[in-house]
Amino acid sequence: MPEVEDIGDGSQDACLVRVRGGRHTGWGECEASPLPTIAAWCAPMSHSACHPVRDSVLGETVDGPEDILRINARVRERSLDLLQADHALSGVDIALWDLLGRARGEPVWSLLGYTRNYPKRPYASVLFGDSPESTTEKARAIRAAGFRAAKFGWGPFGRTTHSADKNQIFAARHGLEDSGHLMVDAGTVFGEDVEAAKRRLNALIDTRTVWFEEPFVSGAVHAYAELALESGSVKLAGGEGCHNFQMARLLIDRAAIGYIQVDTGRIGGITTAKQVADYARRAAVTYVNHTFTSHLALSASLQPFAGIERADLAEYPFEAKALAVEMTTTRIEPDNEGMILAPATPGLGVEPDLEALKAYVVPAEIRIGREVLYRTPPLT
Amino acid sequence: MPEVEDIGDGSQDACLVRVRGGRHTGWGECEASPLPTIAAWCAPMSHSACHPVRDSVLGETVDGPEDILRINARVRERSLDLLQADHALSGVDIALWDLLGRARGEPVWSLLGYTRNYPKRPYASVLFGDSPESTTEKARAIRAAGFRAAKFGWGPFGRTTHSADKNQIFAARHGLEDSGHLMVDAGTVFGEDVEAAKRRLNALIDTRTVWFEEPFVSGAVHAYAELALESGSVKLAGGEGCHNFQMARLLIDRAAIGYIQVDTGRIGGITTAKQVADYARRAAVTYVNHTFTSHLALSASLQPFAGIERADLAEYPFEAKALAVEMTTTRIEPDNEGMILAPATPGLGVEPDLEALKAYVVPAEIRIGREVLYRTPPLT
Repeated sequence: MPEVEDIGDGSQDACLVRVRGGRHTGWGECEASPLPTIAAWCAPMSHSACHPVRDSVLGETVDGPEDILRINARVRERSLDLLQADHALSGVDIALWDLLGRARGEPVWSLLGYTRNYPKRPYASVLFGDSPESTTEKARAIRAAGFRAAKFGWGPFGRTTHSADKNQIFAARHGLEDSGHLMVDAGTVFGEDVEAAKRRLNALIDTRTVWFEEPFVSGAVHAYAELALESGSVKLAGGEGCHNFQMARLLIDRAAIGYIQVDTGRIGGITTAKQVADYARRAAVTYVNHTFTSHLALSASLQPFAGIERADLAEYPFEAKALAVEMTTTRIEPDNEGMILAPATPGLGVEPDLEALKAYVVPAEIRIGREVLYRTPPLT
Repeated sequence: MPEVEDIGDGSQDACLVRVRGGRHTGWGECEASPLPTIAAWCAPMSHSACHPVRDSVLGETVDGPEDILRINARVRERSLDLLQADHALSGVDIALWDLLGRARGEPVWSLLGYTRNYPKRPYASVLFGDSPESTTEKARAIRAAGFRAAKFGWGPFGRTTHSADKNQIFAARHGLEDSGHLMVDAGTVFGEDVEAAKRRLNALIDTRTVWFEEPFVSGAVHAYAELALESGSVKLAGGEGCHNFQMARLLIDRAAIGYIQVDTGRIGGITTAKQVADYARRAAVTYVNHTFTSHLALSASLQPFAGIERADLAEYPFEAKALAVEMTTTRIEPDNEGMILAPATPGLGVEPDLEALKAYVVPAEIRIGREVLYRTPPLT
């Protein structure tokens, strides 16, 4: 990116994974800071629970879904003490599903066992404006673009007074008009401070906000559960910080959330995200994708819940930076009803735009002594 | 290390942190795969929750403990979406406490507010032998070295049958004789499989094992709670996988464990470990350090619970590799009663052996384009 801003916009980086097997290629994207993720891929092995991710992936056979599950479990076990491995695994797992789908001529959601691919209502996901007026403008632009649902988050929210936040929430509702679905994302700004989060509830209830997302950090299960006692018609939502199934399960079981929103690019890929979607369905918690970046990430994030009819909302990047927009030649656009679908074409059904990406490739090199451990490969 | 073995021995790597402020220096150690941790320190900023750790540390002022707490919180917020940052933060936080203690001429445990520094019973922490016979030999060697407590873990445990594990557990008990405290560490081998873990309980109960450590991965709170219902006199223990306060709190609140064992080098440093120790004390769960490596890590790990009298067991590295042994000129040795104490000298009270370390330094270099983002600094 020519300029990287210090704002809550995860579309300013991209950590792409390409896997090859036989004559097939698959693509995935990690929701991750790229350099540490590359290091997790190629770091020297230092003990049995500190293997680099590549040790558990290269040379493995992929003949079916069960092989991808096996590789995923193998990475988890052998990289147990390397936190960043979960980010790296996510992109690898997504690329493996894409590869298998392309090899079989089958969409990933079908490989996952779904026989139907249900339409989702996309909600435009944006940052709050710097002022209530700019938030209203954003909401109007979203409506004008045909969206009937929107989420506002991060930016100034939670950083000054609750009356400033109230003005922001009402400004969003005003721009969306009465009929739009409004969601609010606090971006973990309250840490574990339940009282601070409670002071925002009235404005959320009065604007008929569908959910209040990430008031707290992902592990603050007790805080979520306490806030839920008073949130009335507003459901709590969270989970993008989860990097394994167990963390998502704890939120589902104990945090009294209405929506679980793991990121396929961080939870451990499509394999783990599907496990969360299955668990959430049994627990009557609604699965929603977390996606703020490219349409490659969007397709990957739709697969795990494509076949769940009642999980009918989907996060849709609306103001992604050029890097994320230009990453793919394929785009997933709303249909005449304003709904989106996971592609019905093989794999993830999304083609990366290698020519466009060339402008963004960052040449990185990691050396240990005289050995080149990693060098950004050419995009050909 | 001349040879790195594919075994559960975390003393085969070391990620040392040196901080400087004014004319003072402090040292810390991350429990971490070094390369991704270095990358988390210096990666390019890509959004407001993906700052490299150094962005939140360099240039900050440290005049007292509250400044270290502030820096710790600043890293957590600005590196929220960079998992490996928690490993890097841990070493930085430890080094900052060492620096502050050296500047003030005061041990870290005193800076933490403790007025007493209580002796701990060190337990020799080793891997199970490849056979029951070699486990018995290890136990005898531990006894001969004057230890009256030992923990055996990882290795073949849990990887074949429960009767093989039973033989291993009885072999350890045999070598320790009747009077020794025996602990067993499953090293997360059972994942979330409660039934597999249950099949090991009888042998643990029959050998009067004090605790059964990490039968499951850290987030599998439900599995711990279920196993605890049947573990009788054997307490459950866990927590080394926790990389923030919230994860440790969940184990303390919901997993029915008797012992919480966070690693100061992974949880977020001495700051976060002290927060866990305080919380555990109120919940009547016993805090125990997790330390398998150097005496720098050992001193750091003793500080957070030095002043808690009833938390009187401490993990003590017994078969650490040469790298970890040679890292410091200072060693923390058992006294005539067989007990150990956190040093009473300023900071962590442990001097790194820079001359010895020179043999182990790995020259790493990370380049982005023509810019050298990181190059291993000289040990002078």
